[in-house]
Amino acid sequence: MTKPTVIVLLSGGLDSTVLLGDCIERGYHARALTVNYGQRHVQETTAAWAVAQHYGVEWQYLDLTVLRGVLAGSSQTSADVAVPHGHYADETMRATVVPNRNMILLAIAGAWAVSVKATAIAYAAHSGDHPVYPDCRPAFIDTMAEALRLADWHQVDLLRPFTVLDKAAIVARGHELHAPLGLTYSCYEGRRQHCGRCGTCVERHEAFVLAGVVDPTAYELQEIA
Amino acid sequence: MTKPTVIVLLSGGLDSTVLLGDCIERGYHARALTVNYGQRHVQETTAAWAVAQHYGVEWQYLDLTVLRGVLAGSSQTSADVAVPHGHYADETMRATVVPNRNMILLAIAGAWAVSVKATAIAYAAHSGDHPVYPDCRPAFIDTMAEALRLADWHQVDLLRPFTVLDKAAIVARGHELHAPLGLTYSCYEGRRQHCGRCGTCVERHEAFVLAGVVDPTAYELQEIA
Repeated sequence: MTKPTVIVLLSGGLDSTVLLGDCIERGYHARALTVNYGQRHVQETTAAWAVAQHYGVEWQYLDLTVLRGVLAGSSQTSADVAVPHGHYADETMRATVVPNRNMILLAIAGAWAVSVKATAIAYAAHSGDHPVYPDCRPAFIDTMAEALRLADWHQVDLLRPFTVLDKAAIVARGHELHAPLGLTYSCYEGRRQHCGRCGTCVERHEAFVLAGVVDPTAYELQEIA
Repeated sequence: MTKPTVIVLLSGGLDSTVLLGDCIERGYHARALTVNYGQRHVQETTAAWAVAQHYGVEWQYLDLTVLRGVLAGSSQTSADVAVPHGHYADETMRATVVPNRNMILLAIAGAWAVSVKATAIAYAAHSGDHPVYPDCRPAFIDTMAEALRLADWHQVDLLRPFTVLDKAAIVARGHELHAPLGLTYSCYEGRRQHCGRCGTCVERHEAFVLAGVVDPTAYELQEIA
């Protein structure tokens, strides 16, 4: 029997890596899509490559850095906006929102899914994203799922199993699946090593602690390493 | 008083050109966005430039030809799929559907709109598109309008005034607005001159005839020129 195909939006972070493992575990033939949209933390795309290699899945990488021309105002795509430090759920983290990024990523994944007649695309937004990232909220994602069903004569489902989970639960799930968590990259500063100070580093480490899983990350900030 | 800003998706075809004129007439400060997604008829982007020059509006051009990697199966992005000839409403025209193209374009326009805090984006799908292009159907467009409202803390409206008009009505509106219809480009074959045989050429000429407006187009096919 042929396995159904799923296109997994793989950033190279924790969540999408566990999602890829989860899709494979559920019996999908997975293909991974990674987009360079000019993010400061482009280092994550190297992690995505390593994760795709680990799982032996087809990896589609798109260089869309020209999108910088329309993605102003975010710390993650503009050199003149600083990356906020502190907790991930803080109001200050809104500076890291990349304008309409997730709609762009879902649209491109949808295009590839229609092209190869995939059954679904998978997207790793989780419950901890909601307060800061409008395009991770269930209302947005549900609406995009409907749009993806209507976008072509070939219907594509949008899998988003993590919208009800927090990051600690995702780490726990990843641990259970033996996902290569040590290969993943979260830091918004985008240096080779995780800084340990930015919102995503704080959130990452906290998730490992809450899940009771040893954090394999080497942070620049020694206190949490 | 500052005018509200609208991002107009300007392909360089008839419909989006009239839409740009219509938005300016309604009092918007318009900015035009043109995307090269690897279309066979990339000639239209040159027309878009000319139209933007005509109106003196800011023109944002994005080269996203790398998207070819995920846009397989359409005559408009694959050299090995022929452009169908015949009437625009024919079943055969489905070969020209570019997978999920309009969601990608709306997503990018939405990103630019959020970046510059535009009030709206404008999109020229018309009633004649519906039988062939799933991503021109009102149900799809209404759902995308909702997604755009939810995508960011800054809400963006989706203007789509032509969904209730046919192409002849758009030509008539363009004539009324003194829109530069002669600068526009419709042909799916993508040569310098309109072929006069493909579905979009047939639809273009028919619209001028039905609107009672002289067709300024020089077609290769002499019978309709």
